[in-house]
Amino acid sequence: MKSSVNKAQVIKQSIDSKKNEIIHLLRVFVQAESTQGNERGAQSLVIETLQQMGLEVDVWEPDAKEITSHRYFASSRTEFRGSPNVVGVLKGTGGGRSIILNGHIDVVPAGDVTQWRDHPYSGVVKDGKMYGRGVTDMKGGNVALLLAIQAIQEANIALKGDVIFQSVIEEESGGTGTLAALLRGYKADAAIIPEPTNMKFFPKQQGSMWFKLHVKGLSAHGGTRYEGVSAIEKSMTVINHIKELEKIRNDSITDPLYQTIPIPIPINIGKIHGGDWPSSVPDLVTVEGRFGVSPEETIEEAKEEMKQWIRRLAEKDPWFEEFPVTLEWFGARWLPGSLDPNHSFMQLLGDKYKEVIGAPPVIEASPWGTDGGLLTEIGSIPTVVFGPGVTEKAHFPNEYIELEKVFSCAEVIAHTIIDWCGDEKG
Amino acid sequence: MKSSVNKAQVIKQSIDSKKNEIIHLLRVFVQAESTQGNERGAQSLVIETLQQMGLEVDVWEPDAKEITSHRYFASSRTEFRGSPNVVGVLKGTGGGRSIILNGHIDVVPAGDVTQWRDHPYSGVVKDGKMYGRGVTDMKGGNVALLLAIQAIQEANIALKGDVIFQSVIEEESGGTGTLAALLRGYKADAAIIPEPTNMKFFPKQQGSMWFKLHVKGLSAHGGTRYEGVSAIEKSMTVINHIKELEKIRNDSITDPLYQTIPIPIPINIGKIHGGDWPSSVPDLVTVEGRFGVSPEETIEEAKEEMKQWIRRLAEKDPWFEEFPVTLEWFGARWLPGSLDPNHSFMQLLGDKYKEVIGAPPVIEASPWGTDGGLLTEIGSIPTVVFGPGVTEKAHFPNEYIELEKVFSCAEVIAHTIIDWCGDEKG
Repeated sequence: MKSSVNKAQVIKQSIDSKKNEIIHLLRVFVQAESTQGNERGAQSLVIETLQQMGLEVDVWEPDAKEITSHRYFASSRTEFRGSPNVVGVLKGTGGGRSIILNGHIDVVPAGDVTQWRDHPYSGVVKDGKMYGRGVTDMKGGNVALLLAIQAIQEANIALKGDVIFQSVIEEESGGTGTLAALLRGYKADAAIIPEPTNMKFFPKQQGSMWFKLHVKGLSAHGGTRYEGVSAIEKSMTVINHIKELEKIRNDSITDPLYQTIPIPIPINIGKIHGGDWPSSVPDLVTVEGRFGVSPEETIEEAKEEMKQWIRRLAEKDPWFEEFPVTLEWFGARWLPGSLDPNHSFMQLLGDKYKEVIGAPPVIEASPWGTDGGLLTEIGSIPTVVFGPGVTEKAHFPNEYIELEKVFSCAEVIAHTIIDWCGDEKG
Repeated sequence: MKSSVNKAQVIKQSIDSKKNEIIHLLRVFVQAESTQGNERGAQSLVIETLQQMGLEVDVWEPDAKEITSHRYFASSRTEFRGSPNVVGVLKGTGGGRSIILNGHIDVVPAGDVTQWRDHPYSGVVKDGKMYGRGVTDMKGGNVALLLAIQAIQEANIALKGDVIFQSVIEEESGGTGTLAALLRGYKADAAIIPEPTNMKFFPKQQGSMWFKLHVKGLSAHGGTRYEGVSAIEKSMTVINHIKELEKIRNDSITDPLYQTIPIPIPINIGKIHGGDWPSSVPDLVTVEGRFGVSPEETIEEAKEEMKQWIRRLAEKDPWFEEFPVTLEWFGARWLPGSLDPNHSFMQLLGDKYKEVIGAPPVIEASPWGTDGGLLTEIGSIPTVVFGPGVTEKAHFPNEYIELEKVFSCAEVIAHTIIDWCGDEKG
């Protein structure tokens, strides 16, 4: 016990001594505005940091031809020149279990800049919180991973298993970065993704995919609108029909991890547009949305259920018999992910959480997809999403992270790595 | 009576002798694609024709400064260089009543060209019908007016009152051409507009105006959509609310002229767009539509009723108390027009119709606005809309007109002009 207590003290001291350095690192990460297509600057900072830490660094741009033909490829672009993936490996001495520490470097756009109190890429710190686009989703998590590794190095602990740190592109657009890392051969016995869970454990992640519906009408002059059929009115029937499906799908979910979540797997209607003249009856409306996929079903099963449901519109209104609504799946897609909450890696992470935080972790299913779906589905890697940021601020103005959570998260992860990979001297 | 019968024969013979010439004229009018901003070519043909007929020709471009500041100005543009109005006057000998013969030269765009069997500007004739964009709305009516004047000239009839032929721009965009003609001083004791009524008489015309609504929501990630408020869902409440207003307004209409019309003054929802990301809860939806205005009410009264009704959304859903829907009137607007069906000009036109066609005319209220609203509202000119084309084909692919209707219409109008303006020798 004495050696373990000492080790914990050393890790804690090491993290404490590095706080200012990590705050600085997080700020320059945030300032390196790494929206889709502009990841190179931030990745250069990651490379520099990994090299200073003495890790084996691997930098590559996903091969467009190979990646776009993969069945799980989904992105709004098909060319990745200038958008490198970065991996840093801390090689183990052998005989231990390996771990992937995965975080994405891409951030969503800042949106309406006038809604930000400070510049979206300021990285300004106030009352223990750092502000900026991407600070919670998920550069705060990324520096927590780096800090965990640095603390282990500082404590002179030689791990048996490999630690594979991944700074990937394209998570916000469907996971091409993590898919590329899997195709490059990076596998491990477990993985942590420190997306903003507010320190909760998410062993299961909701998948999601985008759909587009075309709803038809019949044009006429607005002054004799009764001679036409409004595609806007018909689209209201379609949207209500989809809300029914959402209810049916969610009523069937009994997993206790979803107990506190009002709608475990929502179907979100995100966009609508239709008609081209105020004085004409609109003959076409397009509806776009996000379809939540349960961790217990496949993408294919979810697609089939939606397809059958849309066909049933004709039961509500014979119009749809003659003019069926067309359903298209397009753009981004995040695979669902699932890990048995009783898996040994979850148990270990939970134990370390209790030791560091002094209370058991809250365990839930995530309301959004992460790259965890790809790691479990393609790599069969047990994956837990656990990070310091807060979901409510991701993708919104005045995004922030509480810095103390970054440090606590790093401490939990450092101890988890040591026990999972094995301490050569321990 | 004998002289009258002879006059009728002469007019009929004159029209018959000019059929081929008029078909040719209509074809070149149609071929001169005169969409908004491109009216000059077609107007040149009108000028040439009027000069050949020996009329006093007046050509001018509406003065941007003067016209745009007028309270009834409504257009999608504010500059009219290159878009001339044309007026041709057949001066009377004096002591008679004057008449305006008003037709617009502008046509709406052809739309999806693939839906046309022939080129939209072909002017091809098949089975007694000419096809092309603008042939029914309303170049067929325009040539009927020219033919009526030519027949009177051919019969060597000297009229006492002036005949003022107007080929105006911008009817499809809110009436700037007719407004400009009124401001230039053109007035008369009566007016005919041969818009496509399919030979019905429209002494009353529905006005209309465009509105735009902004419906607010609250953004959130689609995976936790219950944390947001969907502006698309709220817009469905707004659209249903407007349908209620449409019902209330139409239930109150008792005018027998609307007896056969399912919805006398429709409110048409023509366009919708909202949201900017399938995975986000949309926080703004914009709805655009056309608000029908009864001949018995003013534009201002109709606007006020809509404004009050939109305010009452808060009674249905407290959301609208905190985030009121904003209402904006924009773009095109057509004033309602109304003439007492017992007016002497209506009686005369009806008598002439019976003489030529052999049956009484069908009298209805028009389901759409015309420049008649401006002529009655600003010029206090008794106006009847009566023309040869068919409404159902206006603004649609494969627009056509039955050529025999053009000739019959010209005959009715020629006799009406003679009796209204007075025959110097008669």
